[in-house]
Amino acid sequence: MGVKPRATGAVRPGGRTARTRAAVLAATQEELEAAGYAGLTLEKVTERSGVHLATPYRRWRTVEGLVVDLLTEMGRNEIPIPDTGSLKDDLGALALEIAALYRQPRARALVEGVVTAALRSPEASTAWAAVIAERNRLASRIVDRAVERGELPPGTDGAAVSGAVGAPIYYRLLVARGPEDDEVAERAAAAAYAAALSGVFTPADPPGPP
Amino acid sequence: MGVKPRATGAVRPGGRTARTRAAVLAATQEELEAAGYAGLTLEKVTERSGVHLATPYRRWRTVEGLVVDLLTEMGRNEIPIPDTGSLKDDLGALALEIAALYRQPRARALVEGVVTAALRSPEASTAWAAVIAERNRLASRIVDRAVERGELPPGTDGAAVSGAVGAPIYYRLLVARGPEDDEVAERAAAAAYAAALSGVFTPADPPGPP
Repeated sequence: MGVKPRATGAVRPGGRTARTRAAVLAATQEELEAAGYAGLTLEKVTERSGVHLATPYRRWRTVEGLVVDLLTEMGRNEIPIPDTGSLKDDLGALALEIAALYRQPRARALVEGVVTAALRSPEASTAWAAVIAERNRLASRIVDRAVERGELPPGTDGAAVSGAVGAPIYYRLLVARGPEDDEVAERAAAAAYAAALSGVFTPADPPGPP
Repeated sequence: MGVKPRATGAVRPGGRTARTRAAVLAATQEELEAAGYAGLTLEKVTERSGVHLATPYRRWRTVEGLVVDLLTEMGRNEIPIPDTGSLKDDLGALALEIAALYRQPRARALVEGVVTAALRSPEASTAWAAVIAERNRLASRIVDRAVERGELPPGTDGAAVSGAVGAPIYYRLLVARGPEDDEVAERAAAAAYAAALSGVFTPADPPGPP
């Protein structure tokens, strides 16, 4: 399952629908910062955004739906894919970007809200998994370029390498519950790099040339 | 901060206090399996366990406290530390054990409950982080033995290696939201092994001999 932009927003990117969505997502983010996920309600978001009362109920239906849409938007905008010409440097830059994102209290509150939603609602879980799969798909471009340069063998699983960069950063956030310092990110990138070079993400029987 | 057994249970391991704790923790686990974290209340746990009504309120105070105590108990009992004589095999066995644990629906429901509690309550967050730190401290014995055998350089951070084994498994559970298959575990172990061998978890300026 891919993450598709909502049809209405895609058709009329500067129109009223897009403005409404932006207002509601901004209000959701502010409410999350103010009261956390536990305090988030569609009523409060509607009030803060100033949109028509029925809109968030019709469009997002639940708090989980709102949070996932907000995360999709942030994921699309806030993590650029590095292209330094070197796999090691690309993975390092990617890890530092993810850690820097989650050092921001608003991003941390948001991802905590999204994970809470995902653990409570199958719909939110599916959407959150799709957001992450899409991020890893985008970041796999780093690995594709490394394969083209001959740094990694063909068939290396780019999304798995990207996931390996992210995993220790999410582990720190959700499991070890510590700060997202640069050391975590640098170790995550260095470990993923060493593992990729040693063939951990390359199938034993890679696809041959056609 | 370490995880200490509760004084009463430690002093009288077979006594009434220990039996009460076991009954309450078993009831907590059953309630989690039946209704998930969202449905967990001290009232329901008390009723199911058959203990005196005041006991859970006095001893655990909150649902978060109960869940964290249960997880501490499971962490202590359910993940043995492998000792195969080889770092690669030890890390592989450790990863397979963690993945096998979280393939059990009751353990998965439990850890989802614990993470939800940790994201909502600073007290639960501190306790959960301590449980994880203690697990990584125990598992760091694997790395200590590898250093003694000359497989890894002195100064390798054993808790960090253990965390690197666990991170992709928790990432699958909480972020990518997929099944805990053995492939995830085997890749996690192989990646941590490759990273440890390449010096990722060894400080650039390791402690010298005295």
